[in-house]
Amino acid sequence: MGEKNILSYETVRLDDENNQLVIIDQTRLPRETKLLSLKTLKEVWTAIYLLQVRGAPAIGIAAAMGIYLEAKRIETNNYDEFYKKFKEAKEYLASARPTAVNLFWALNRMEDVVKNNPDKSIEEIKKLLYEEAVAIKEEDIWVCKTIGEYGLSLIKPGMGILTHCNAGQIATAKYGTALAPIYLGHEKGYNFRVFVDETRPLLQGARLTAYELHSAGVDVTLICDNMVSIVMKNGWVQAVFVGCDRVAANGDVANKIGTSVVAILAKRYNIPFYVCAPTSTIDMECSNGDDIHIEERKAEEVTEMWYKDRMAPKGIKVYNPAFDITDNDLITAIITEYGIAKAPYGESLKEIFTKKSADQ
Amino acid sequence: MGEKNILSYETVRLDDENNQLVIIDQTRLPRETKLLSLKTLKEVWTAIYLLQVRGAPAIGIAAAMGIYLEAKRIETNNYDEFYKKFKEAKEYLASARPTAVNLFWALNRMEDVVKNNPDKSIEEIKKLLYEEAVAIKEEDIWVCKTIGEYGLSLIKPGMGILTHCNAGQIATAKYGTALAPIYLGHEKGYNFRVFVDETRPLLQGARLTAYELHSAGVDVTLICDNMVSIVMKNGWVQAVFVGCDRVAANGDVANKIGTSVVAILAKRYNIPFYVCAPTSTIDMECSNGDDIHIEERKAEEVTEMWYKDRMAPKGIKVYNPAFDITDNDLITAIITEYGIAKAPYGESLKEIFTKKSADQ
Repeated sequence: MGEKNILSYETVRLDDENNQLVIIDQTRLPRETKLLSLKTLKEVWTAIYLLQVRGAPAIGIAAAMGIYLEAKRIETNNYDEFYKKFKEAKEYLASARPTAVNLFWALNRMEDVVKNNPDKSIEEIKKLLYEEAVAIKEEDIWVCKTIGEYGLSLIKPGMGILTHCNAGQIATAKYGTALAPIYLGHEKGYNFRVFVDETRPLLQGARLTAYELHSAGVDVTLICDNMVSIVMKNGWVQAVFVGCDRVAANGDVANKIGTSVVAILAKRYNIPFYVCAPTSTIDMECSNGDDIHIEERKAEEVTEMWYKDRMAPKGIKVYNPAFDITDNDLITAIITEYGIAKAPYGESLKEIFTKKSADQ
Repeated sequence: MGEKNILSYETVRLDDENNQLVIIDQTRLPRETKLLSLKTLKEVWTAIYLLQVRGAPAIGIAAAMGIYLEAKRIETNNYDEFYKKFKEAKEYLASARPTAVNLFWALNRMEDVVKNNPDKSIEEIKKLLYEEAVAIKEEDIWVCKTIGEYGLSLIKPGMGILTHCNAGQIATAKYGTALAPIYLGHEKGYNFRVFVDETRPLLQGARLTAYELHSAGVDVTLICDNMVSIVMKNGWVQAVFVGCDRVAANGDVANKIGTSVVAILAKRYNIPFYVCAPTSTIDMECSNGDDIHIEERKAEEVTEMWYKDRMAPKGIKVYNPAFDITDNDLITAIITEYGIAKAPYGESLKEIFTKKSADQ
């Protein structure tokens, strides 16, 4: 393969001694696995802005570690001055991707450390910030690994598995969400055959998922999005795993555009369709999928991006939604770090949160 | 729009006076509407080989007209010598696309003219060849227009219509098959809103269908293949029209890869799914879709074609089937030039052929 196994890299690594973050530059994948050192706050901002680091958990971790390194550089013993400078840095970093909920969540967790410790010394606060950033990453590793183990309990060696978009190692601290069952099974010699659809228009399946699974030695077959039906009809797929951006209280799921296509096809062919969802993505305040706003992106992603030439006539309309909603009746199970939820989701998701509360 | 309405062009025009064929060079679409003059047999061969002319009916017409022009150039009054040279030219032209059934069908019709008239003068045979080539084109215009009228009877002004791949004007003599109801309705001011999926990997939807509908003034919205579900869920589609490559006796349909995806989604959303099928594509000898061989094409169409850079890691597998089978239970109706067939197709398709026989 030439490339080192993706599992031997850390997606976001804090090099505290040298005051830097080390990330895999995802914009260079799949052609090159290049590590980037981020030393200044501006470099962290730029890496998030340019999608050099992407995936909700990975962005959150990079932001937490980036704001910690910036806090270390604030030279004062005055709490108010420290907090003011911290807050400026936080707001700057939050502006890198204004729609990334996980970015704000991680930065708010870091701010809480400062806010809740006005009586501690700046030195102590910096140490607590370090611990919080590391905790955010460690928690993500635990979440992904636990989801992976629950997911693995649902499948068997030798199965054909299909996934959409990228919910893998490079989008998280380790293992990913949808890809975690595959990696954990692969480590046990489960010899899965994995089908990856390219996921137009941004091609996260072709560029990222195919790359990372292949680098880990998993058997990968790339297909176009419109080939999912024939692959299922051929009898090659026994389970589907996808990630998610947001889960509503009734189990409706918002995820990358095309997820609902795969779910409807899986139902037609009686193939289980599993959504891997950290509880941080489950929004019990959102009653159902109709309440989730679907972001529309620019036409050029469809007509021009990646291409040598424009591939569609000028003057036509283009509809380019980034997400779609998969209705809960299409979902066999929602796999969280606190267990597996099944229909009726209104009840099972509540139980997941009861378990989570009990654990904390 | 800048471009002239596609309906004002002939896809394949015989310019008998100047001994040439005039075609639209489809490899330059959607960037440029360029006419090509084909004067020699080799130029006709090359145009078919390079897909400058494509679509089963258009290829058949180009081949018939090309072999007629070549026959005109054979200078002899000896029947046997004429037939020998005609046959050489025919075999050469047939080699341009060895899997195009319509190419052989048209060339065989032309050969029959020679074969069945050994007693006529070469001059008379050349005249009969002219008439046969023109008849093949006229018949295709009638087939498309009749399918269009039947299709139009199933829809209403203002409807949203979705189509896949290209079964349009430029694939036929005029109007196309799946696009014929849209063009005929558009001429009556039916103001359809048409959704065109890009149809990976060869992008016939984006490059060809979006181009030709837009040039005719139809309201076109381009989407990626994985956006069909959300567009249907949004309530924007009231009917689907697709073409077909082959229909089995039980109504199973082979068509461009991804057709079955659209059909399964249409069923989920209770949207009628119509297949436009000239009777020449219905194969009553083929009992069902399982008997239809699916051509697999090369991996590079998925990983490299059109792109500035390769978009997937090296070393992975790629599955690239050109067609898929849409099961008959997903099809609301099969629209032919001899009427509309509905389930059970075993019976209704037989009735279509009974009508056709009575007409001939």
